[in-house]
Amino acid sequence: MTVPVVRAPHPLAELSHLEFVNARDAILKIQASDKPLFFRTIYLQEPAKAELLPFLEAEHTGRLTDATPRPIRTAFVEYDVLAANAQVFHRAVVDVVAGQVLSNDEIPRKNHGFPHFNVNEFALFEEYCMKSERVKEALKEYTVPEGFEYCVDPWPYGGPDEDDGILKSMQGLIFVRDARKNNPDTNHYAYPIPLIPVMDWSTKEIIRIDRLPTGGSEDGMGPSIASKEPRDIFTKSVPAEYIPELLDVPARSGLKPLDVVQPEGASFKVHSDNLIEWQKWRFRLSVTPREGPVLHDICYDGRSVLYRLSYSELTVPYGDPRAPFHRKQAFDFGDCGIGRAANSLKLGCDCLGAIHYVDAYFPAADGTPTKLDSVVCLHEQDSGILWKHTNYRTDRGVVARMREFVVQCIGTLINYEYILAFKFDQAGGITVETRATGMVSVVGIEDGKTSKYGNVVSPGILAQNHQHIFAVRIDPAIDLFGSENSGQTQVVVEESHPHKMNPETNPFGNYYEVRRTPVERATWIDSEVRLNRTIKLENPTKKNPISSKNVGYRLISPATQMLLADTNSRVAQRARFAEHNFWVTGHRDGEFWAAGEFTNQSTFEEGGVSDMVKRGDMFAVEGAQTASETSDPVVWSVFGFTHNPRVEDWPVMPVEIHQLHLRPSDFFAANPALDVPTKKNHASVLVACCGGDEAN
Amino acid sequence: MTVPVVRAPHPLAELSHLEFVNARDAILKIQASDKPLFFRTIYLQEPAKAELLPFLEAEHTGRLTDATPRPIRTAFVEYDVLAANAQVFHRAVVDVVAGQVLSNDEIPRKNHGFPHFNVNEFALFEEYCMKSERVKEALKEYTVPEGFEYCVDPWPYGGPDEDDGILKSMQGLIFVRDARKNNPDTNHYAYPIPLIPVMDWSTKEIIRIDRLPTGGSEDGMGPSIASKEPRDIFTKSVPAEYIPELLDVPARSGLKPLDVVQPEGASFKVHSDNLIEWQKWRFRLSVTPREGPVLHDICYDGRSVLYRLSYSELTVPYGDPRAPFHRKQAFDFGDCGIGRAANSLKLGCDCLGAIHYVDAYFPAADGTPTKLDSVVCLHEQDSGILWKHTNYRTDRGVVARMREFVVQCIGTLINYEYILAFKFDQAGGITVETRATGMVSVVGIEDGKTSKYGNVVSPGILAQNHQHIFAVRIDPAIDLFGSENSGQTQVVVEESHPHKMNPETNPFGNYYEVRRTPVERATWIDSEVRLNRTIKLENPTKKNPISSKNVGYRLISPATQMLLADTNSRVAQRARFAEHNFWVTGHRDGEFWAAGEFTNQSTFEEGGVSDMVKRGDMFAVEGAQTASETSDPVVWSVFGFTHNPRVEDWPVMPVEIHQLHLRPSDFFAANPALDVPTKKNHASVLVACCGGDEAN
Repeated sequence: MTVPVVRAPHPLAELSHLEFVNARDAILKIQASDKPLFFRTIYLQEPAKAELLPFLEAEHTGRLTDATPRPIRTAFVEYDVLAANAQVFHRAVVDVVAGQVLSNDEIPRKNHGFPHFNVNEFALFEEYCMKSERVKEALKEYTVPEGFEYCVDPWPYGGPDEDDGILKSMQGLIFVRDARKNNPDTNHYAYPIPLIPVMDWSTKEIIRIDRLPTGGSEDGMGPSIASKEPRDIFTKSVPAEYIPELLDVPARSGLKPLDVVQPEGASFKVHSDNLIEWQKWRFRLSVTPREGPVLHDICYDGRSVLYRLSYSELTVPYGDPRAPFHRKQAFDFGDCGIGRAANSLKLGCDCLGAIHYVDAYFPAADGTPTKLDSVVCLHEQDSGILWKHTNYRTDRGVVARMREFVVQCIGTLINYEYILAFKFDQAGGITVETRATGMVSVVGIEDGKTSKYGNVVSPGILAQNHQHIFAVRIDPAIDLFGSENSGQTQVVVEESHPHKMNPETNPFGNYYEVRRTPVERATWIDSEVRLNRTIKLENPTKKNPISSKNVGYRLISPATQMLLADTNSRVAQRARFAEHNFWVTGHRDGEFWAAGEFTNQSTFEEGGVSDMVKRGDMFAVEGAQTASETSDPVVWSVFGFTHNPRVEDWPVMPVEIHQLHLRPSDFFAANPALDVPTKKNHASVLVACCGGDEAN
Repeated sequence: MTVPVVRAPHPLAELSHLEFVNARDAILKIQASDKPLFFRTIYLQEPAKAELLPFLEAEHTGRLTDATPRPIRTAFVEYDVLAANAQVFHRAVVDVVAGQVLSNDEIPRKNHGFPHFNVNEFALFEEYCMKSERVKEALKEYTVPEGFEYCVDPWPYGGPDEDDGILKSMQGLIFVRDARKNNPDTNHYAYPIPLIPVMDWSTKEIIRIDRLPTGGSEDGMGPSIASKEPRDIFTKSVPAEYIPELLDVPARSGLKPLDVVQPEGASFKVHSDNLIEWQKWRFRLSVTPREGPVLHDICYDGRSVLYRLSYSELTVPYGDPRAPFHRKQAFDFGDCGIGRAANSLKLGCDCLGAIHYVDAYFPAADGTPTKLDSVVCLHEQDSGILWKHTNYRTDRGVVARMREFVVQCIGTLINYEYILAFKFDQAGGITVETRATGMVSVVGIEDGKTSKYGNVVSPGILAQNHQHIFAVRIDPAIDLFGSENSGQTQVVVEESHPHKMNPETNPFGNYYEVRRTPVERATWIDSEVRLNRTIKLENPTKKNPISSKNVGYRLISPATQMLLADTNSRVAQRARFAEHNFWVTGHRDGEFWAAGEFTNQSTFEEGGVSDMVKRGDMFAVEGAQTASETSDPVVWSVFGFTHNPRVEDWPVMPVEIHQLHLRPSDFFAANPALDVPTKKNHASVLVACCGGDEAN
């Protein structure tokens, strides 16, 4: 029975517990009861932009009434119908108030591109692997130190080879761990066994065991040779512990506590329906299974800036050409999902100060809502000086400190961690920050050898060269509301060009030309540092009252190396998005995935940005905002880092930090942070030199 | 009479008060008493590297005794001998213990490249300008609002024009300020008068008044036309206040205090002879007049990393081609000096927490030591997560927070501020950070007009497009001591290259090649993001015990646009350093200046990196460290930002932040931060949602 939802939530409010249950129950009602279901995903299907914009317009202009039309509340449900040796994937949309299934598509089995793996399938995979006689037989080739136990890390299969057939597969990396330590957190990554079992996910059978290359640069590309006698490959291995009670180095001394104390509490407010306000910023936060935190309807001082901001995808291709390592290419959002893999954050560990934690519901296998505690944290931090000027005539300095508001989520993808953050400042800026940490993915290498495909980070351990390439999806809404604007932002490429010295326009040679090119058609754009190429998001119908230019924001994304894989390789075909720094596409509802919806075992980027661009959507460039033949642009910012591991990245790597910035550019009539209080902080104290006690 | 120095200071200790006075007195003794002297600079002349290295070797290997040879203590003294209408510049070296002048060069007057201006010459310039009949006459062209007063900001003259002759000049930007406000900090930059007086610095006479262009894009390049009737150009001007009591917007509300509290005090120690220790880091700090903070002999856990680290130069060329704006090109280090222009930092304003402030002595005009208080601050800050791993099987996460140790200095160059910082972390990393803030340099533009040469940031105010290009000087010392190493680091360019798919070496197309090219000869290097070009500093005589690779550091400097001015322009000739992202030169003692020693009114980069490279110094590339024909490399990292001003940059701009990173790369045998305590911080508190009181 469907229980009616009483209060009308905001259209962007996440599913309530009740709505979640309603969605599940509606699916159970339409499916035969003799076939068990496996629920993958239940979350709010966001309203269509065309329906939501008028609602937001009414909301932001104070005209919201009970009579304002509201988009119906719908849930997106992904589930499998389990039958003998098969899982039939379904994708349904449910009206969570009426409890009605509005659509229920059985996705036909195809030869590539499967739904994500759920975290609760990981343990299952390990269990089946270790039960497999084929695996047991293969493992006999290697002796294992006394008291060690096997463990298997699941890994997405990657892009299938030509002769792989139509199989949803998973592969596993086998390690051993020192069970004598009697500690479940002892680090197994120091002991890899060079075998990869491959499982047919339908039958749960191990269909093949790949034998891994373990040679050095001089050894060619083939796998290690099978041996009759069990081999002891761990004679020179050393533990790689990172948890404090197992470390063989003592914790360093001398680090005195540093507390962030907010005696009057936090400056942000978290309202119902996940509305968040801080220092003139206002937005709604949701946590989706795939993206983790998503920010909606971001406004500053009542003016809209972005319609939606999210991480979209991340691909991690490895550069080791030896089979089967060419298939090591994770899509951490599409193959698994950052929301599903989110850490439960801990007070005083993952951030300091006054923290609000956000929980999220994900479906258990049977579809019941399961709360994941504290998957996102909200807090403030000091970030140094925001602006300063000293009058040299009077020596009076006025200084405002930068306070940032941080939305942070940390996902663990088996061995690796991504710390994803959105940071707001008081000058109208938004920073999207990524910190990469965790365990680098490693394989075995024979003692004493080195490899051009990676770095030996511990005896017998090769950390292979790889890349991490992220896509951030930016759905802009530059100052939309309160006018006849239909919601279309204009994207402009701005460049600073050198200009030849000449008597007419550049007599002294110091001139440079700022060139603007509106984006007229869906396209990709590469960074060009030599031209300081910058993407601008503008509203051509609103002019800055001071400069007379379009109000806008600049997207400042550091130029980073794009995908190195050959453009004809499977790796590149699956991740076309990773070949260019920016993509501008025409908006379609629900089109959130840079590499397409089904990245797991994909052979090409189906429905990703490369397909979106092929539609040839046109954008209005002259400020004609209502032309029906033009599209509303979405900008995808792609950045990454080429990670040729250092020994210092072992066993847990120090963070690699990347940031992109959205900064107002003629959006305001002056520095918007001029009103930030410039008061002295009275909690700061002096430290004396040379053992003196100037301060304390 | 020279007073003997009692205790032998460390060779890198800054001049004591006594040594400073000895240096001055020695100069007074050799100069005729009837000609007054004008002292510009008195500071420690650093020992020759060849002399200091053996001393440091002894110090770091615990073999330092009273018998260890010490370089003699010498001061560098720059002064003018004042005569009728002339200042004759001298550069002397003084033995500050013996009180003897070792050298005293009179620098011959040449047609370009003058010594820096001293901050105490700024007021003098304004005074002479306002006394000038020529200036008074010119000012009659403009009416000034009732109760307003004139003020003149000094500006370096820039690169002289062909017909300028041999004159040390200074130019001034004239503004008016609203004296009725009775506040010396009212902002005059909102009221520019389009005249630039040019002064012959020898005679203090105004030799010319440049009339400035004030037109828009449509108006051509000529200056405004002289008018018989006084013109009122400020009818539409609006104030641009930034000090709290004059702001017409109230301070924003809702920002609750955020205190950094260190209940047990700071974790760093400041010893005598400016030795600083923090979390395994150890270095010596000095403050020089030109560079501000300089770090010497930087070691981590007893192993040397850098011999010397400093900001070297900064050029700020403007892109407005209209005369005389082509001469707007400041060299903020060479024309004035960051140390001389350093702010006296204030507790609780310029940084938070437990702070140590460093003072510095600069000479007054008569050479007496004048203490500038708190020109550098030292403090710690939390910088988010340093590393984390969560075991997905047990859900146990271990997280270490990143503590940073910051050395910060803020220089005010008339209208503009640079916040320069060196930051150390616990994973062996050093970050060099720049924050640009302050008042953008503005000129007048006629009401209602816009210009392609800049942006109108307030009625009548044009902020011209410009660039800021910095050079950081890195004198490496990768793991030098405790072996037969002579002190030569090897510079290697590391790139990640795509590799064509082919059956032999890249059958699946996922391979990429890491290519290493040792730098064999002094050269410049440009960034190439497409190849992830990275500079490595290595010690080829020491191998990492795990990877067998050279121990080293990576220099990670974001690729930024270089100088846009035509390479044949004076602007570019003066700042060759700004045309390339990196320079590698052979070490010479005292060679600290990327654009040469005398940038003030230079016509070309005399003695800068471009000249250093022309020497063709060779470097040892095979680990032969003692070859007498090879040089010890110095790396110069050049970066900047192209600043096409936004309205938001007015009146004080929010910081633009740039960072470069030095990160260990196979320098350590594992993550050096593995021993950072992973304890929970107990001062953090929960914040409730929706008005609840979960926490407080």
